[in-house]
Amino acid sequence: MSATPTSNPVTAGMLVIGDEILSGRTKDKNIGTVADFCTEMGIELREVRVVADETDDIVAAINALRTRYTHVFTTGGIGPTHDDITADAVAMAFEVALPINDEAREIIETRLRKVNVEINPSVLRMARIPEGATLIANPVSGAPGFRMGNVHVMAGVPKIMQAMLNEIAKTLTSGRKMLSRELPCGVGESTVSTGLGEIQTEYPAVKIGSYPQMVNPQRDPDVAPVYAYIALRSTNEALLDEATAKVKALIDRLHAEKGITLSEEPKP
Amino acid sequence: MSATPTSNPVTAGMLVIGDEILSGRTKDKNIGTVADFCTEMGIELREVRVVADETDDIVAAINALRTRYTHVFTTGGIGPTHDDITADAVAMAFEVALPINDEAREIIETRLRKVNVEINPSVLRMARIPEGATLIANPVSGAPGFRMGNVHVMAGVPKIMQAMLNEIAKTLTSGRKMLSRELPCGVGESTVSTGLGEIQTEYPAVKIGSYPQMVNPQRDPDVAPVYAYIALRSTNEALLDEATAKVKALIDRLHAEKGITLSEEPKP
Repeated sequence: MSATPTSNPVTAGMLVIGDEILSGRTKDKNIGTVADFCTEMGIELREVRVVADETDDIVAAINALRTRYTHVFTTGGIGPTHDDITADAVAMAFEVALPINDEAREIIETRLRKVNVEINPSVLRMARIPEGATLIANPVSGAPGFRMGNVHVMAGVPKIMQAMLNEIAKTLTSGRKMLSRELPCGVGESTVSTGLGEIQTEYPAVKIGSYPQMVNPQRDPDVAPVYAYIALRSTNEALLDEATAKVKALIDRLHAEKGITLSEEPKP
Repeated sequence: MSATPTSNPVTAGMLVIGDEILSGRTKDKNIGTVADFCTEMGIELREVRVVADETDDIVAAINALRTRYTHVFTTGGIGPTHDDITADAVAMAFEVALPINDEAREIIETRLRKVNVEINPSVLRMARIPEGATLIANPVSGAPGFRMGNVHVMAGVPKIMQAMLNEIAKTLTSGRKMLSRELPCGVGESTVSTGLGEIQTEYPAVKIGSYPQMVNPQRDPDVAPVYAYIALRSTNEALLDEATAKVKALIDRLHAEKGITLSEEPKP
């Protein structure tokens, strides 16, 4: 009817696939990127799982997430080597065949000719796309991802994954955007928690989180070394601003009681 | 009988708890730390889940992971504010009470007196420890974590989490250490994949992974912009060295065929 996003919550699950994350060899950067993307799109990222390069584990995770959330995003395991088994797992999860996709094959072979890399049979692994899936363009290195049902299968290399996210952004159902405000406390969580809990009870439509952050002990030896930062989130801007004002007043009151000024606070 | 670690695989699951990770507000650093820790300890980290500050989701994830793996590590949600509900969820998962723990209370109050922070009733939230759990010391900021059965409940602040990991290291069952070798390829995955797959088939006890990494396109405009790095992992050093030598020979052969020298490779 219109371009207005749906008012129902639009949710997502993410599946990070790869031994290298679980062994510590590679430090994941994609979770943060997908989290930011979802927030920007008005999609609630509800759960992330990281699993190894094991077909059964990937199939189980895909089936758990795709039945539970509006969208699923996967990263990793779509290259040409023996440990790239994500396409196999998606085909098994959806119980469909995994044929060579002519469009994918053409894209990959064109790219390899361009960068002067030999086209050998292993390249065809990357052209195997589950039956019924549509391709997700890879403007960085050619080999495409794909969308099967509500599951978006993307590369693990962060730059390629980001490019694929940009590609799919326009195709996704999005929701009401989650707005956020953040306030530094300049005091520890123990000090602010009672008043904060009362404000949370008063504003159930605003999600209030308290995030402790280490303070340089050399700088503030006589106060608690962990200060709280208060994040408020809601799709309702009026309520969000009201609740934020109350938290601000709470912080000001605590500061007045303790003779603290905001300039003493560390930056997050 | 001895200090020799068990020869059975010792496994772990990790649960990251917090809205802030799923909203993108905070970028997780604890997964990489726990992954490195497990590898160092000879523990196979098999799965990670990230869930929101929702009791039902936390309980379900704890129960899924604790029945599946030798150890479970959780991070986040053990502070004094209303959104810190990890202890509640662990008590529900294990179906035990969540009383004020006198030892925890004493530790927390001693710490707060030392840093001159008022002790108010909300502080007691952090002293609620599931019945039957043992405390995990927090040398950074006082408030302890705890171990309930095979579930180790730790703080979300990275520095505190690391200190708690150090505390529990000596208490954990560990396994045979996973050894690893890594070789830069200087060619893309498509080029190395066939030979690599053959070596993997020959050495099932060695896990061979291929990890693509972006190359500066300005520097190598005429080759594929994504090169492979080959990681080999095994608890059997002799087989690991054999397989690594074979991968090295494969890379040397591909380089000779293509006139590439290793000095042309980008650093990971």
